[in-house]
Amino acid sequence: MSKPLRIGMVGSGYMGKAHAIAYRNAMAAFEISSESLICDMLADATPELAKQKALELGFRRSTGDWRDMINDSDIDVIDICAPNFLHKDIALAAIAAGKHVYSEKPLALNSADAKRMTEAASLAGVSTLVGFNYIKNPTLQFIKQLIEQGDIGDLVHFRGVFNEDYLAQADLPFSWRLQQEFAGSGALNDLASHLVQLALHLMGPITELCADVKIVHKQRPLMDSNDRSGRDMGMVENEDQAHMMVRFANGAQGTLETSRVAWGRKNGLSFEITGTKGSLVFDQERLSEFSLYLAGDKPDRQGFKRILVGPEHPDYKAFCVSAGHGLGFNDMKAVEIRDLYEGLVNKRRLWPDFRAATQVNVILDQVIESHRRNAWVKIEQYDGDQ
Amino acid sequence: MSKPLRIGMVGSGYMGKAHAIAYRNAMAAFEISSESLICDMLADATPELAKQKALELGFRRSTGDWRDMINDSDIDVIDICAPNFLHKDIALAAIAAGKHVYSEKPLALNSADAKRMTEAASLAGVSTLVGFNYIKNPTLQFIKQLIEQGDIGDLVHFRGVFNEDYLAQADLPFSWRLQQEFAGSGALNDLASHLVQLALHLMGPITELCADVKIVHKQRPLMDSNDRSGRDMGMVENEDQAHMMVRFANGAQGTLETSRVAWGRKNGLSFEITGTKGSLVFDQERLSEFSLYLAGDKPDRQGFKRILVGPEHPDYKAFCVSAGHGLGFNDMKAVEIRDLYEGLVNKRRLWPDFRAATQVNVILDQVIESHRRNAWVKIEQYDGDQ
Amino acid sequence: MSKPLRIGMVGSGYMGKAHAIAYRNAMAAFEISSESLICDMLADATPELAKQKALELGFRRSTGDWRDMINDSDIDVIDICAPNFLHKDIALAAIAAGKHVYSEKPLALNSADAKRMTEAASLAGVSTLVGFNYIKNPTLQFIKQLIEQGDIGDLVHFRGVFNEDYLAQADLPFSWRLQQEFAGSGALNDLASHLVQLALHLMGPITELCADVKIVHKQRPLMDSNDRSGRDMGMVENEDQAHMMVRFANGAQGTLETSRVAWGRKNGLSFEITGTKGSLVFDQERLSEFSLYLAGDKPDRQGFKRILVGPEHPDYKAFCVSAGHGLGFNDMKAVEIRDLYEGLVNKRRLWPDFRAATQVNVILDQVIESHRRNAWVKIEQYDGDQ
Amino acid sequence: MSKPLRIGMVGSGYMGKAHAIAYRNAMAAFEISSESLICDMLADATPELAKQKALELGFRRSTGDWRDMINDSDIDVIDICAPNFLHKDIALAAIAAGKHVYSEKPLALNSADAKRMTEAASLAGVSTLVGFNYIKNPTLQFIKQLIEQGDIGDLVHFRGVFNEDYLAQADLPFSWRLQQEFAGSGALNDLASHLVQLALHLMGPITELCADVKIVHKQRPLMDSNDRSGRDMGMVENEDQAHMMVRFANGAQGTLETSRVAWGRKNGLSFEITGTKGSLVFDQERLSEFSLYLAGDKPDRQGFKRILVGPEHPDYKAFCVSAGHGLGFNDMKAVEIRDLYEGLVNKRRLWPDFRAATQVNVILDQVIESHRRNAWVKIEQYDGDQ
Repeated sequence: MSKPLRIGMVGSGYMGKAHAIAYRNAMAAFEISSESLICDMLADATPELAKQKALELGFRRSTGDWRDMINDSDIDVIDICAPNFLHKDIALAAIAAGKHVYSEKPLALNSADAKRMTEAASLAGVSTLVGFNYIKNPTLQFIKQLIEQGDIGDLVHFRGVFNEDYLAQADLPFSWRLQQEFAGSGALNDLASHLVQLALHLMGPITELCADVKIVHKQRPLMDSNDRSGRDMGMVENEDQAHMMVRFANGAQGTLETSRVAWGRKNGLSFEITGTKGSLVFDQERLSEFSLYLAGDKPDRQGFKRILVGPEHPDYKAFCVSAGHGLGFNDMKAVEIRDLYEGLVNKRRLWPDFRAATQVNVILDQVIESHRRNAWVKIEQYDGDQ
Repeated sequence: MSKPLRIGMVGSGYMGKAHAIAYRNAMAAFEISSESLICDMLADATPELAKQKALELGFRRSTGDWRDMINDSDIDVIDICAPNFLHKDIALAAIAAGKHVYSEKPLALNSADAKRMTEAASLAGVSTLVGFNYIKNPTLQFIKQLIEQGDIGDLVHFRGVFNEDYLAQADLPFSWRLQQEFAGSGALNDLASHLVQLALHLMGPITELCADVKIVHKQRPLMDSNDRSGRDMGMVENEDQAHMMVRFANGAQGTLETSRVAWGRKNGLSFEITGTKGSLVFDQERLSEFSLYLAGDKPDRQGFKRILVGPEHPDYKAFCVSAGHGLGFNDMKAVEIRDLYEGLVNKRRLWPDFRAATQVNVILDQVIESHRRNAWVKIEQYDGDQ
Repeated sequence: MSKPLRIGMVGSGYMGKAHAIAYRNAMAAFEISSESLICDMLADATPELAKQKALELGFRRSTGDWRDMINDSDIDVIDICAPNFLHKDIALAAIAAGKHVYSEKPLALNSADAKRMTEAASLAGVSTLVGFNYIKNPTLQFIKQLIEQGDIGDLVHFRGVFNEDYLAQADLPFSWRLQQEFAGSGALNDLASHLVQLALHLMGPITELCADVKIVHKQRPLMDSNDRSGRDMGMVENEDQAHMMVRFANGAQGTLETSRVAWGRKNGLSFEITGTKGSLVFDQERLSEFSLYLAGDKPDRQGFKRILVGPEHPDYKAFCVSAGHGLGFNDMKAVEIRDLYEGLVNKRRLWPDFRAATQVNVILDQVIESHRRNAWVKIEQYDGDQ
Repeated sequence: MSKPLRIGMVGSGYMGKAHAIAYRNAMAAFEISSESLICDMLADATPELAKQKALELGFRRSTGDWRDMINDSDIDVIDICAPNFLHKDIALAAIAAGKHVYSEKPLALNSADAKRMTEAASLAGVSTLVGFNYIKNPTLQFIKQLIEQGDIGDLVHFRGVFNEDYLAQADLPFSWRLQQEFAGSGALNDLASHLVQLALHLMGPITELCADVKIVHKQRPLMDSNDRSGRDMGMVENEDQAHMMVRFANGAQGTLETSRVAWGRKNGLSFEITGTKGSLVFDQERLSEFSLYLAGDKPDRQGFKRILVGPEHPDYKAFCVSAGHGLGFNDMKAVEIRDLYEGLVNKRRLWPDFRAATQVNVILDQVIESHRRNAWVKIEQYDGDQ
């Protein structure tokens, strides 16, 4: 490649660091030279913080104002690791400047914003990618292949859960995550966005859903208070847990569940898919394996087979030549970066892009709407291509 | 006890044999003498079959007509292991004759029948018991204790599944199980009846639900046909799979799922209960253990603890003095027989009785109704005591 | 059968009760009529205790002196559930009286005694059976079949463990179990006897071994002392843990390990067998399943398959018609009783008989000898038929 | 730091690539700036290959002769990823040139070579590190802490296994791995070297062992032959499987087992450690979790607790802020690089260094010797500090 791809990243918190690790990991694993992909500029809240973090995370330049990167003609891609409520403004500015955009999920706080972002990108002709990294796992790539090849037959059921316990402690302090203005929905945006995207990816479009949503801990102590006696409490505005029944376009049924108060679940993204010829079970807390049941085995030796991901499966070989050695969470992100790089170089549609991510926002909005109306709702098919 | 308890059992198929094993197992494990509990008479379709089976299963007398037992003044308890569609007639006749009734589940094909049976028993003043044996498991008895003691705090979520694959093979022949007249509903009656009863037992009353139901394999080859080419097919009348969202009276949410076409699941009754202080996971395919997560552990050593059932837990000691040796499916039934025997001897309410079982039928009827109306439905509280 | 088989059982403690449950369970499951197999007489330490226990455990007659049964011409089989150190005297007396003998394991406290008992039985022409019930498990019966059919190829390695924690607590009181006179060896006799027998059963003869043995807690408080300060302590005479390397006649290697102080293991009998075409993993704490790996699967879908025992596997159907419902520890004992009954009726060699059990004692003696000499030892092949 | 640390790496195969990934991963995760740690030069068999690989793996310079790096005064550390039989020559040359050496395991083909290398390094005053990366896992670091803090009491038993199946297929071609000249021992050097090192790390010195060793597949087809009919076969010179009993200096017993023909095991490094107050179970195929049993829990809620590694455990936070997200195999290597970097910068003893690794070679040599003599052997304590 004659011209390198230059990245400008906004945000250097948890997710910014994960991206920084992933850029280097992707370059080493997929053998992308440092002349081809450059971590160029990092933006954060202040010039000092940005400078310090750029040094630590391996970016060449830094700025205290993300708009500097938008206006920098050297930057090809804006990578958004900023808080969720800023995604829209940064993305729209980047698109207006003709930059490609790589945004963390959820794309937006609601589907109206997501659609506006998608349409802007479409008009500007820039490429977009949203960080739904779980589906980049070689294990999930292989599961996708098995489904497409028909190994488990016609799909009849999907049960998916994404539960964690990061807010299970009742007296954890009030924060921006609990406010609609900054976070939009709660566990739905944080966790279920991944689960919905994964369900769409593996099962196809959702046409109808009926949902139920609950705030378990209705108020939390305000952080700036030294008094936890209950007088100074903030009212939680978004859901701690939610679940829904869905109907897929292919006729299959499904349930999706999410919670941020599910004690014991740390990265509890799991699913079971049943088809007419077999079934599949996956648990993100053991991300380098899955279980497969195929109906055709002899009657006395049928069972779920635990398959460890290895070099026979997609993209694993880039990380390790031997099966069973195990990939980690950060490796999924490296595959995502590889997709970003190769997609842009080869001018292919990145995936999942803003359009695909908007479909997730459309569904999450309808979860709230279904709960509000206490009824089944139809789902708009915004991303017709998926 | 001066006078022994004499059992008359109707039916000697799979479930009849399980009861026969359980009577003897219960007597040995709980040290009930053979002068106190007597397997007296067995009824089946013909005198010859009944005689043969009585010999094999250890009953003293036999008959080709179950009405003979109803009219036999020596018989104290009618134990109904006949096909589901006969439960009502046998139970009503037994009640009319002043006999106690021990019936297999589902109590009836619908809630109207179940209520009529319950009211008859109530008027006659006889005791009733329904064979929801899973909850008799020492593991589940202990889980119930943990919940009642508040070990996992206030309950916030229940996810229950009862999936099997006995009809997953698409070309299994048409049978009575697939016809509403003889079976009522499908997976709901066969499997979900257990799951609903268990959910009520552990979580308390369900006040509302919204359900979705599906026939996956719409027709099956007729058995009397040599032709599987598709011309002679029977239309399946009841659901292969179903799921529902529920709301419990205590404010918790839940999902319940059932399937008879879920490849790989052989006795796939499993649940996860989340509370404000911990959570619990159980899987019937590993019935002698469960996992417990308690929030209070030190941060660096939190996790689900796999607890093997042992003599410290309810009723285990009757079977084995050492932990981890494992109880089997039939042992649950033996606990049920012990409950039957001790309850009758001590004139205590048996549990779950017809009234409690009717509540299960009420809910299963509303699953179908919810699906028909494509909407949430309210649940009548028939069993106010539960 | 014209004449019933009449059992006289010595001992009504833990193991006596397990046998009592098993007789009834076997009769119901395998449809042996109560006219064919009779629990006739129970002997225990005093007439009063024996009488009480006979009533509870379902025996017709009772006695305070086991010699009464030996002299009773109606008794066909003496079932020895007495403490280990009494096995020899009771068995020799029973054999002298021409009775068949069904003894709990370990057959004797050492191989010299075991040989004497075997030779006596051989001369008298009576049948013998020793209660190594674990191998009666349908799961293990199927594993045996897979090995014999060559499904996993030539055997190359066996790793077996039987660990429990019943003496892990350092201050548990001193008891007969810790004295050579009454218990012989420690974990070896209690636990490893099962493991060695199972290894011989699945892998064939052991020709050499090298062992290491250890008393972890060297003294224990004497029970009749109110003082746990350390002054009144009993010296433990037999091993808390032991392990050995073995060489099988078929060329395979193996390790066997046992412990009664292994925290967390409750019935921790587990093994992994490797062959040239596959491997097998079993864990008694989950006795109704095992895992099978077969080399021939496609490279991208290889893995250990978890197989739930079901009606396709040996003897399961007698207990339950559906897979995955789970057998319990007591069900293994019922299969053993069925073997006893059918073997005697059909005049077949019972298995494992005294001869086979003596081979286990021969090996356990050599474990101690190997440890004493700190060297490999050769193993006498006493049971040439196995 | 004023002067950067410059790495020269020999070898760009599987392990070279793993190192390349690890350097970048370590720099991003542990925030080591690219001015402080420089992947400077890569050596491989030819200049062309080295140049190509340097580009792919992110090294600045390249050479077709590793001696160029030895002679390059800019290089601070020689990182040896060359085949095992070259470790000695490269290390000795590097040490002679005053360079620090970071070598893959096994350090040498035998303990004599390892000692010579250790003594040279000692005399030259250079630092050394050997790539026993498994112990760098945050999970294992935490296990080490638990042991040192006494959480599981005094150690009484260790059972360790490192089995894989990379040579289980009987007709895999003959290769250098099967020849003593190039590989030394077989599974012992490849796999058991890790297991022995880990056992020493967690349990302390081994004082005696008795081992058994076996070549399962005695010959393999020669690669340059088109004929697999058996005429052109190479004789395998080193063991396919081995196991040993060991005695630790602290009085604990242990067994260690290794195999390269154990079907189904892909990265099957597992161990169980028993102490007087609890026990620990770990399986490398699920490297981000372990199970802990503590004796002190209440009797009715005892069990193994599955603990997911998270930010409360050592070094995890550098990779991810949330528990349960899972680290991968390559992340262990990144921790090793961090140790290399920080140790050299802060002039601390690197660990495990050549001295510690030599102790592993001493033990592996004695495994062969014990097998040859068919007897227990005493172990020289070469690394007195460990």
